[in-house]
Amino acid sequence: MRASQLLGERYKEKPAEANLISHMLLLKGGYIRQVSNGIYSLLPPAKRVVAKIERIIREEMDSIDGQEVQMPVVMPRELWEESGRYKSIGSELVRFRDRNEHDMLLGMTHEEAAVHLSRNEAVTYNKYPFMIYQFQTKFRDEPRARGGLIRVREFTMKDAYSFHTSQKDLENYYEKCLAAYNRIFKRVGVPEVIAVGSDTGMMGGSVAHEFMLLCDAGEDTIAICNNCDYKANLEVAQARSKHKDYEEGKLEEEKLEEVYTPDIKSIDNLVSFFGLSAKNFIKAAVFAVQNSNKPLIVFIRGDLEVNEAKLKKVVYANVFPLTDYTDISLHFGFIGPLGLDTSKVDILFDKSLEGEENLVCGANKVGYHLKGFSMKRDLIPEKFYDVAKINHGDECCVCNSGTIELSRGIEVGNIFQLGTKYTMSMNMTYTDVDGERKHPIMGCYGIGVGRLMASVLEVRHDDYGPIWPISIAPWHVHICILNGHKGNVKEVAFALYEKLKELKCEVIIDDRDVNAGVQFADADLLGIPVRVIVSPKNLDNNKIEISTRDKTIKKLVEKEDAVKEILDVVNDLLKA
Amino acid sequence: MRASQLLGERYKEKPAEANLISHMLLLKGGYIRQVSNGIYSLLPPAKRVVAKIERIIREEMDSIDGQEVQMPVVMPRELWEESGRYKSIGSELVRFRDRNEHDMLLGMTHEEAAVHLSRNEAVTYNKYPFMIYQFQTKFRDEPRARGGLIRVREFTMKDAYSFHTSQKDLENYYEKCLAAYNRIFKRVGVPEVIAVGSDTGMMGGSVAHEFMLLCDAGEDTIAICNNCDYKANLEVAQARSKHKDYEEGKLEEEKLEEVYTPDIKSIDNLVSFFGLSAKNFIKAAVFAVQNSNKPLIVFIRGDLEVNEAKLKKVVYANVFPLTDYTDISLHFGFIGPLGLDTSKVDILFDKSLEGEENLVCGANKVGYHLKGFSMKRDLIPEKFYDVAKINHGDECCVCNSGTIELSRGIEVGNIFQLGTKYTMSMNMTYTDVDGERKHPIMGCYGIGVGRLMASVLEVRHDDYGPIWPISIAPWHVHICILNGHKGNVKEVAFALYEKLKELKCEVIIDDRDVNAGVQFADADLLGIPVRVIVSPKNLDNNKIEISTRDKTIKKLVEKEDAVKEILDVVNDLLKA
Repeated sequence: MRASQLLGERYKEKPAEANLISHMLLLKGGYIRQVSNGIYSLLPPAKRVVAKIERIIREEMDSIDGQEVQMPVVMPRELWEESGRYKSIGSELVRFRDRNEHDMLLGMTHEEAAVHLSRNEAVTYNKYPFMIYQFQTKFRDEPRARGGLIRVREFTMKDAYSFHTSQKDLENYYEKCLAAYNRIFKRVGVPEVIAVGSDTGMMGGSVAHEFMLLCDAGEDTIAICNNCDYKANLEVAQARSKHKDYEEGKLEEEKLEEVYTPDIKSIDNLVSFFGLSAKNFIKAAVFAVQNSNKPLIVFIRGDLEVNEAKLKKVVYANVFPLTDYTDISLHFGFIGPLGLDTSKVDILFDKSLEGEENLVCGANKVGYHLKGFSMKRDLIPEKFYDVAKINHGDECCVCNSGTIELSRGIEVGNIFQLGTKYTMSMNMTYTDVDGERKHPIMGCYGIGVGRLMASVLEVRHDDYGPIWPISIAPWHVHICILNGHKGNVKEVAFALYEKLKELKCEVIIDDRDVNAGVQFADADLLGIPVRVIVSPKNLDNNKIEISTRDKTIKKLVEKEDAVKEILDVVNDLLKA
Repeated sequence: MRASQLLGERYKEKPAEANLISHMLLLKGGYIRQVSNGIYSLLPPAKRVVAKIERIIREEMDSIDGQEVQMPVVMPRELWEESGRYKSIGSELVRFRDRNEHDMLLGMTHEEAAVHLSRNEAVTYNKYPFMIYQFQTKFRDEPRARGGLIRVREFTMKDAYSFHTSQKDLENYYEKCLAAYNRIFKRVGVPEVIAVGSDTGMMGGSVAHEFMLLCDAGEDTIAICNNCDYKANLEVAQARSKHKDYEEGKLEEEKLEEVYTPDIKSIDNLVSFFGLSAKNFIKAAVFAVQNSNKPLIVFIRGDLEVNEAKLKKVVYANVFPLTDYTDISLHFGFIGPLGLDTSKVDILFDKSLEGEENLVCGANKVGYHLKGFSMKRDLIPEKFYDVAKINHGDECCVCNSGTIELSRGIEVGNIFQLGTKYTMSMNMTYTDVDGERKHPIMGCYGIGVGRLMASVLEVRHDDYGPIWPISIAPWHVHICILNGHKGNVKEVAFALYEKLKELKCEVIIDDRDVNAGVQFADADLLGIPVRVIVSPKNLDNNKIEISTRDKTIKKLVEKEDAVKEILDVVNDLLKA
């Protein structure tokens, strides 16, 4: 490729609309252009990167017996009615009516299409297990598209769907896929991606993992234990619920008594008033719940906060925190578990309160709290729920000794054990060995290709541009011609270029009549791993300069050895 | 690949919904499944064929300096307002509103997106020419989707857009692309595809070619001269307009006179009444024209018919034939060019009448015709238009000696010289050598990938299934195991399979425990070029059978030579 012919200008200035590094570099470097909010076109270098990422994913999917298929972008309403998602998904699902007044939609994921494609083809047990996958355009009408390719509305996704005759078989395959995903992220140059436990969200199912690339640009927060293997998205991260003081058996059982606490409402004020730690209080958090006419009061230990994502999952509905509520006599600041009218409010207890004693809580009376409250004596709920937020520095709930650290991360992939959610609702069955009709058990596995490209940029760049891993770099070698009008510089550079092309090397040559500063700035923005500089000064000494974009190599070689030396550097990088 | 694991059942029966051979074979052979009207999923064998077709197209596009990009499926209304097509295209363009009440659409082609992507990137002449291309999903809400993948609503298209600084440069590139297209069709196994002159339709522009695969399943009719190179879609095929008799100078000029012709209206009746050939009459064809409140009368030589597609292009609107019209006093059967009230009707003359004399035409009076009418004397229109239908057996208008033959064809690709239609309306400019801002000149070039696959099937099959050209076959070698339970048949077959895989041969093995009839029927439906049969009978003689799907080769080889012999057959086919 000649740079003079490459479509896509590279800019000096930081584009105003870009906050994330990847967004900025993709615009500056001539990789993407916005067509509409959250909708982009890819220029040739980006298309080359994406194609290489796709090739790596394809090889890994094939290596775990995936069969590539293609399902449509546009689907009929009926298909999504079957699964129930036509109704359950909101306005992020684009719906339209075709010319025959038929309701259609744009696929944002393809579970329904995968079941539709498979259900008449795999009707006996001996066809199982199998996995199908595709690379397909999805459209998700995100309310807040942002960050270039990090959160878009239209995107290419590799989505895969596996079908099994037993949960055990699904679990085995899930592990194989998890390993394949780890190989993919390693091969595209981000081996630091980690798999963390996650919410199953609108996909349904039980077990799910997200693959997170830890970096500041991430929209997700991940809790990671510094001692054991525990890693989870904050949305599902298990909070440590045991109250240490009691474990150590320090306190005696107190009597329940009312205490006058005029105007003392917040935990901070109560802590100083009573001279106790926040762990000894019951906090009441009040929420409005979608589709419910009763407020929900969540009781939680005083030192903890409610994790709304976890609460949502427990109540199967959206929740909104309330700081006031006039319809009934809830005394904000003095709300406690005893004496609430459950015909007017719903109540839920966090696991942090399970079995706790000697607590201070609201007395449901303005100006009063209760002291000596016991969850073993005064009120024993049917169930405790894990709805607490985990905090940076908390003790790990798994190993009980490590400390939880919170990090930001970008989700670059996800895998779900879906169970029979779709095969039951869509009535996909097979005849098992025993002659019975059964619903296959499904898993699904996604990677957003464009987001992965952008994520790589978030962690593989310097101040001047991308440092593409060679496995996905648009080209392997970038030849710069300095002072091309002098002596035989141009001839030597083009001879190198032609020779490298002949040897199937992926090479781009900057044949533009621009100065060295512009050439280097653009080369930095293209981020090609191996740079070759042909300049009059070095040629005078019969030398050519070879360097790597990550600056680990920089050397002068004899002109005659250049081709071999360049290919050696490329091959060393490819092997690394 | 093991056939036992391959997703997709193959059927014995012809599917009821399929009329076209390709549709039938794609369903029977487990290649495609319908998701909605004109919307299909591709099963693994089809996806493999499509991927190979795409690879061939990509290589040829790269060979003419194409740069692969990616433009979105969903585009904002504004982009198509710029070109004017948001209004001019009807309900085949899917429009929807996003969650922010923004009007969006599904791309059915990408001229607007290509200009949008390029207009800020190629602002000086030295960036030209360039060509960008993509493989992208399109949606066109066809009123009549039919024939499996032949006419669908959702499809993958390779679309390419070239930009030039002169018409001459566009023409040169257009020729290069035409040649590349011919190479593509040859490489995918249908060298008989021909380029024919075509209508530019909604794309705009002047010169256009369609690539037609002649076969009965085609929806288009192509006029082909049996003597010269002339080929054109019937929609634009030039009719021969010269009236031979006059050329030969046989007749003398007659006087204009009125003749009483009671109830004699049709050309057939007039021919016998006057004892003249149909060529001596002026026929009047009446049309309603979209968005016009006046009927349009087309006068044409009596032996010819009006080609509505050509007429549409002349009047820039849809036309509908009328056989009656009550609003004004048009006397159907007696309509002629003299004395019509042009405030009430529009009039148009076909080229066939140019310079003709001694004609019979209607007198615009019930029961009367005029004789001796001359287009040189009695009425000389400003312009004559070519709106006549060409007929099978007509003389060629180009070489004047060949005969036109009409054939059915499937359009598998098209190329257009668009000119500045899009760059002007969307204000794309560059600075030319002379310092002036100019609009680049565009060409565009499409191939429907799925339709091409189906078209290949229309001409590469036998009664039992596809005969895939090896360049696009899902696999190269298909191993059948007959009586796998006997002796070492299975071991030998699998040893062959493993060895071939090791040697990077694309091989599928039928490891299912089914009888030879089922194996062969399915192998025919998969249409793999080279078939290897491992059977107890042949193994007894230490032999293995190799044959080709097209039946040109069938031989027994020594077991030990099988791998080499198989690869030789494959390589010979690949070279052919």
